[in-house]
Amino acid sequence: MTVETIAPALMTDQYELTMVSAALRDGTADRHCVFEVFARRLPTGRRYGVVAGTGRLIELIRDFRFEPGEIEFLRSAGIVDDAAATWLSGYRFSGEIEGYGEGELFFPGSPILTVTGKFAECVVLETLILSVLNHDCAIAAAAARMVTAARGRPIIEMGSRRTHEHAAVAAARAAYLAGFASTSNLAAGRAYGIPTTGTSAHAFTLLHDDEPAAFASQVAALGKNTTLLVDTYDISQGIRNAIAVAGPDLRAVRIDSGDLSVLAQQSRELLDSLGATETKIIVSGDMDEYSIATLAAEPVDIYGAGTAVVTGSGAPTASLVYKLVEVDGRPVVKRSENKATVGGRKTAIRRHKPTGTATEEIIYSQGVPDHQTNDRLLQRTYVAGGEVLDTPSLAESREHLRQNLISIPWEGLKLSAGDPAIPVVIVPTA
Amino acid sequence: MTVETIAPALMTDQYELTMVSAALRDGTADRHCVFEVFARRLPTGRRYGVVAGTGRLIELIRDFRFEPGEIEFLRSAGIVDDAAATWLSGYRFSGEIEGYGEGELFFPGSPILTVTGKFAECVVLETLILSVLNHDCAIAAAAARMVTAARGRPIIEMGSRRTHEHAAVAAARAAYLAGFASTSNLAAGRAYGIPTTGTSAHAFTLLHDDEPAAFASQVAALGKNTTLLVDTYDISQGIRNAIAVAGPDLRAVRIDSGDLSVLAQQSRELLDSLGATETKIIVSGDMDEYSIATLAAEPVDIYGAGTAVVTGSGAPTASLVYKLVEVDGRPVVKRSENKATVGGRKTAIRRHKPTGTATEEIIYSQGVPDHQTNDRLLQRTYVAGGEVLDTPSLAESREHLRQNLISIPWEGLKLSAGDPAIPVVIVPTA
Repeated sequence: MTVETIAPALMTDQYELTMVSAALRDGTADRHCVFEVFARRLPTGRRYGVVAGTGRLIELIRDFRFEPGEIEFLRSAGIVDDAAATWLSGYRFSGEIEGYGEGELFFPGSPILTVTGKFAECVVLETLILSVLNHDCAIAAAAARMVTAARGRPIIEMGSRRTHEHAAVAAARAAYLAGFASTSNLAAGRAYGIPTTGTSAHAFTLLHDDEPAAFASQVAALGKNTTLLVDTYDISQGIRNAIAVAGPDLRAVRIDSGDLSVLAQQSRELLDSLGATETKIIVSGDMDEYSIATLAAEPVDIYGAGTAVVTGSGAPTASLVYKLVEVDGRPVVKRSENKATVGGRKTAIRRHKPTGTATEEIIYSQGVPDHQTNDRLLQRTYVAGGEVLDTPSLAESREHLRQNLISIPWEGLKLSAGDPAIPVVIVPTA
Repeated sequence: MTVETIAPALMTDQYELTMVSAALRDGTADRHCVFEVFARRLPTGRRYGVVAGTGRLIELIRDFRFEPGEIEFLRSAGIVDDAAATWLSGYRFSGEIEGYGEGELFFPGSPILTVTGKFAECVVLETLILSVLNHDCAIAAAAARMVTAARGRPIIEMGSRRTHEHAAVAAARAAYLAGFASTSNLAAGRAYGIPTTGTSAHAFTLLHDDEPAAFASQVAALGKNTTLLVDTYDISQGIRNAIAVAGPDLRAVRIDSGDLSVLAQQSRELLDSLGATETKIIVSGDMDEYSIATLAAEPVDIYGAGTAVVTGSGAPTASLVYKLVEVDGRPVVKRSENKATVGGRKTAIRRHKPTGTATEEIIYSQGVPDHQTNDRLLQRTYVAGGEVLDTPSLAESREHLRQNLISIPWEGLKLSAGDPAIPVVIVPTA
């Protein structure tokens, strides 16, 4: 039994199944419930969150099943009784899921996912829903800030090695959604059609008898439309060797260490002096939104970002929670939460000026608002009666986020710590 | 094609395969290489790192294969040529892997994994090796600090929802290795035999008509040897309801919000006054090593830790790198690295006083040292000639870490920022 063969249904906190056991016994398992996913707050100083992961989540929910071996484990460990084991064996989500589209912005209290159905069938999805959304939203928010900082220059996601091997694939997806140009992760390329990139590491240069031999080998294999890594020994000599081997048509050089501001300038001058005026400069090495912003005036063509993007650049989780807000039509709420939390199913709209600039997000508790000309309804249906509906493509979600980031007030795009980009107004039941 | 069906062999950075392509063409693919995994530094202020993940990594390497569908993807995307595709189709690691045992401490420069073999067969493992070790070591180090702070009180790992769904399973394993008592994650229970725990959430109380009804249902299903969550409405009333329903033999109550110092004291007094003197108090909610330490003097019996442990408590990745250090017996090193980096295969020992206290770690570049009575060789063989040897059990590794933490100077266990617990001495080739 290895983790690779364990189905997502078991990637679940035990208490969900003990609750199912108890609710089946006392007759509450079939009560009609509404659960909502939202964040009470954004990571400190962040001005917006980015919805990401819903597309892959919906696929996981569609396939969410407890297989016989898993049921046997749960029975033999005494986690569920016979009735619950039987119920889990037949599990298939039959309710409704609606939520914000991927690439939508969110703010404190935004109901980014709403799950409706019988208590038992909704509660067993809690851990999976939160794991997917907390991870992917965290990565997408960090990535979006880097894309803003890069001011149109492409960023390559190359952080797979800094995070769990499966998380790396989801991180590549979230970064692409947020506007990254490509990824080094081949699984993400295969699963999601994301452009992949990558040529060679320092090890390749060290493997060879000298740097020109390594460069010649790479160009022989990959052609001149490749990127030569020039900082294994001496960067200036590395650039000279690169152009000597590949000629001035070489696509790019990469610098992965040192003072990147200075090195980018020197490298550009040297490349130009060698006639390689079209050869691009790629810089990498501990890039985050702040170091990218610092390089805005330097002759950098492409950034490579790793650790910071896959770890959420200081905010590795999105602090999303999954809360029961309605039982058999009755709003419910945990007493000790802050006043911003209200019970009942929510409907959310974003209000805009006629120019298109967002001004506020309005969340209605119970009841659908009359919306105005420049309002946009933020929720769409993902699952109806247990049937998964078509979801937007990753490319469409990527474009949706790009448009969203244009729509918020300009202060909302600042990297510095600040308030949410637009206020959230919660309208409780009259 | 979903990620769930993608083999770990594709969770790889593209450049590894382009390097294989080029090296196969130029004849360097078969050069005998040594790659080492080490950290140039510990996360800021940390006094030790913890080796974790090697056991699950070795299983992934054993099963590391490129399947026909993956080869076809790589061919059609133009990432590898025919020769490389053929080579990848037959891939099976045939070299040697040695490294520190799981549960071993590490410091800057410690060679925690050494991979030896032909260049091509070693280089394709880079991303997988680093993903597994960077993630698991980060979690284990954070968890070990929490275990120290808890001073013998058990800690439950309950952070699955705050990290990627697969990372959650590995995080539960790493936390258990570091001394956590149990996990909420069922997949970790099944895959690794870790004790699982969990009873109910606020949703279960809100689902019912009132709190006593919810408690009665839970006790009917799970017995009195359960934990009742008492902070959905009013904690004092919650405790009274819990004991009224379950009697004074109730195993535990859980408090998940509020000022836990004050609430723990008040809850203990109330439980005692109700005759429930043996009922334990479990506290959870944003617990990290510092909040655990703050509660040391309070009547808390068990901690529940989530977000902080699964995100490495401020250090979500271990900054481990995978570097080529030797080619055909010749030490190699990237020029621009700091002086602590030396080429050549390393041998590491830890030196101790006769009392058992560790005094320093000595790393020999090329050549095995004469070791003294109180020295301990830190490396063991995981894979020989491509064959995976027996690895220590998770329980053995857990005990190994416990002993290790006893062996370092007491300053090394402080939570405050400081230098590595023991110095590392690197002895270069004479």
